[in-house]
Amino acid sequence: MSDPQADASRGFLISLEGGEGAGKSTVLAAITARLEGVGRELVVTREPGGTPAGERIRELLLDPAQVLFAETELLLMFASRAQLVRETVLPALERGAIVVSDRFTDASFAYQGGGRGLDAGHIAELERWAALVRPDLTFLLDVDVAEGLARARARGEGADRIESERDAFFERVRGAYRRRAQAEPERFRVIDASQPPDRVRADVLEALEARLAGSGLA
Amino acid sequence: MSDPQADASRGFLISLEGGEGAGKSTVLAAITARLEGVGRELVVTREPGGTPAGERIRELLLDPAQVLFAETELLLMFASRAQLVRETVLPALERGAIVVSDRFTDASFAYQGGGRGLDAGHIAELERWAALVRPDLTFLLDVDVAEGLARARARGEGADRIESERDAFFERVRGAYRRRAQAEPERFRVIDASQPPDRVRADVLEALEARLAGSGLA
Repeated sequence: MSDPQADASRGFLISLEGGEGAGKSTVLAAITARLEGVGRELVVTREPGGTPAGERIRELLLDPAQVLFAETELLLMFASRAQLVRETVLPALERGAIVVSDRFTDASFAYQGGGRGLDAGHIAELERWAALVRPDLTFLLDVDVAEGLARARARGEGADRIESERDAFFERVRGAYRRRAQAEPERFRVIDASQPPDRVRADVLEALEARLAGSGLA
Repeated sequence: MSDPQADASRGFLISLEGGEGAGKSTVLAAITARLEGVGRELVVTREPGGTPAGERIRELLLDPAQVLFAETELLLMFASRAQLVRETVLPALERGAIVVSDRFTDASFAYQGGGRGLDAGHIAELERWAALVRPDLTFLLDVDVAEGLARARARGEGADRIESERDAFFERVRGAYRRRAQAEPERFRVIDASQPPDRVRADVLEALEARLAGSGLA
């Protein structure tokens, strides 16, 4: 790949972000159902993971038995992302596809930056040379931390390594996400995810519709 | 750990570097045998790996079935290193131990920088905030690439993902190692590893003896 970003502008990259219990899965299904009607190739992926190497990195990152330092966590997140971008995202964008990723680089600013307190400058530097691309559109599902955690815990699954953090950690994650959305209002759509699921889905689809129309993709 | 480098200067960090077939294993055994007589705690480790998380990263890095991009490889190497430094190396140095590592950050400059052609500036930046420490003493076992590869292949083991690279890759690795040694002659001891094993071992032990005496450790 001589110039990996040569034709990335032909496609369209959407990321979906939010804390625990924000309802990402439901929204992801609604977004992909709508995009299947666009008539473009659709690629749906997730972070960490999305590639064979990335899924092995994901297992390590979420394993509750591991004690990982914040720097290790950040570097593993970007290792997964570097692979995903080069193996999947950039080739898809070059083909003109719409790519939807369940989390992307904003999650590192929120979790490893806001949550773990790592220097945002290091993360920005990694974004520049390891992640290469930034989404064209990012949905932030924003919900009160206590409410989101209550929902996530009500699902009754065992908590992974990151879900086991304390509430103060998730407050910092939420704050970092919201600050990023405020700093880039043209890219972010902040959705009030404390609403009933039908209302959340409707808000997302309405914002998606407007953005697709504005991009000539609708 | 409020200031992880607070007392790292109490210990002594030695790294062992070299290309394929340079004889690192034999030399490592000789170094550790000598250091056991010093009367300090001795910690021997390796990269990538050396911690539970690091060993899982090592498996991924060396798996011949994986196709990893250069950036992914670099980030995984530093994820393993970030964990090793914080979990093992810095606490040991703070206790006043001598730490010997089979490869350390110079290997990233040589393999991912020289070999894969990644920007040395990115690697230096990662060294600064992720690796934190630089060895007090580094042995570079330097051997002609063709000779080293012939030796490594004569061992008859299956090649791992990195050992499967072409000769030109290892020429770039060797060149990058030698340039680093030239740039930091006070830290590096370059050993002619084309000599018979007994002679290589003797050269290493002689250089080690001089350095230990100079540091008040002998």
